[in-house]
Amino acid sequence: MLLYPGFTPLDAIGPYHALSQFPGYEFFYVAQNAGPVSDGGATILQAQKSIAEVDTVDILVVPGGLPAITMARTGDPLIDWIAKIHPTTEWTISVCTGALMLGAAGLLKDLPATTHWYSHTELSDYGAIPHDERVVESGKIMTAAGVSAGIDMSLVLAERIFGREFAQKMQLDMEYDPKPPFNAGHPRSAPTDVVSELRSLFDSVLKPD
Amino acid sequence: MLLYPGFTPLDAIGPYHALSQFPGYEFFYVAQNAGPVSDGGATILQAQKSIAEVDTVDILVVPGGLPAITMARTGDPLIDWIAKIHPTTEWTISVCTGALMLGAAGLLKDLPATTHWYSHTELSDYGAIPHDERVVESGKIMTAAGVSAGIDMSLVLAERIFGREFAQKMQLDMEYDPKPPFNAGHPRSAPTDVVSELRSLFDSVLKPD
Repeated sequence: MLLYPGFTPLDAIGPYHALSQFPGYEFFYVAQNAGPVSDGGATILQAQKSIAEVDTVDILVVPGGLPAITMARTGDPLIDWIAKIHPTTEWTISVCTGALMLGAAGLLKDLPATTHWYSHTELSDYGAIPHDERVVESGKIMTAAGVSAGIDMSLVLAERIFGREFAQKMQLDMEYDPKPPFNAGHPRSAPTDVVSELRSLFDSVLKPD
Repeated sequence: MLLYPGFTPLDAIGPYHALSQFPGYEFFYVAQNAGPVSDGGATILQAQKSIAEVDTVDILVVPGGLPAITMARTGDPLIDWIAKIHPTTEWTISVCTGALMLGAAGLLKDLPATTHWYSHTELSDYGAIPHDERVVESGKIMTAAGVSAGIDMSLVLAERIFGREFAQKMQLDMEYDPKPPFNAGHPRSAPTDVVSELRSLFDSVLKPD
């Protein structure tokens, strides 16, 4: 799991629950430098390794966050590292705006992919074909929609690698029997005012000049 | 948010996404000692404060984990701290087996509450009335079911404090429009084999002699 300052903790920890229980895999966090990585708030996770120490990975997961968008736009050593690691993986995976980093690394050209609902248009700037789905598979690349979609992704991945029964066990273990109190998790269902307010907020932070 | 070695990261980070955006509240992690707290795997979170530094809290959240069950059974300074802090809170909240710690602190006597599906019987040992619901409110105490239910809880809480529109904005922000690939998130829906295998696994670790 790649970390960087400003990553969205739930993008990483949603998938972590199942992935950290994958038999035969050793889960670790990797970042520009080993050591603490902050989300910009109270959540500070330890990266076990630096990108310089990691030349090959079986499963690469790139979580989203606001900086994923700007790193994808402007380039970053982490993007180069993703491009270098991808040929060594069994699975290359993004959650939320992590997909833009895969895109900037050149991995999504002409491929169906998904990301946070706000960033679908920008995803196509990298040659991807945005699909409005929870999880999109394209060969060994799997992209998940915004933030909480990483949980769904982890179960899809668990099934691909270990089969349905293992994946169902993971789902039961985390009691993933969701009952959101509102039907507001996607622009198609959320009240219009809620969508436009949140879109304006994102625009104010993220819209290129 | 209380942390302790062996806590389940998703119990904490699921609610964190919304709670860390609550206007006018400062989110922090607290543990026996300030500094790194490990889940026993790769996830190491920094606690900003020690329990000795914290005498009052507006919203206390206690995540679950296997050690929550054993701490509740045998007693622990964290249980005493929960009992001390509870009278100062606006809300006292648990996710998953964190409810057993609230129970051991004497907070759930004769009150409806929920916890991870595996631990409902044990919850009643503390005088609670187990309800098989995703989120149970009882005055200022709110308990959530297993692991991922903390996300639903955070949205219920967001509505109670800031109203429906704010809560819906949080849900849309995290694109919480869940599509689990299986219907296996609860013993009532999961295949019988999957339930009995996981129950045996938990029994082997958790059943008192």
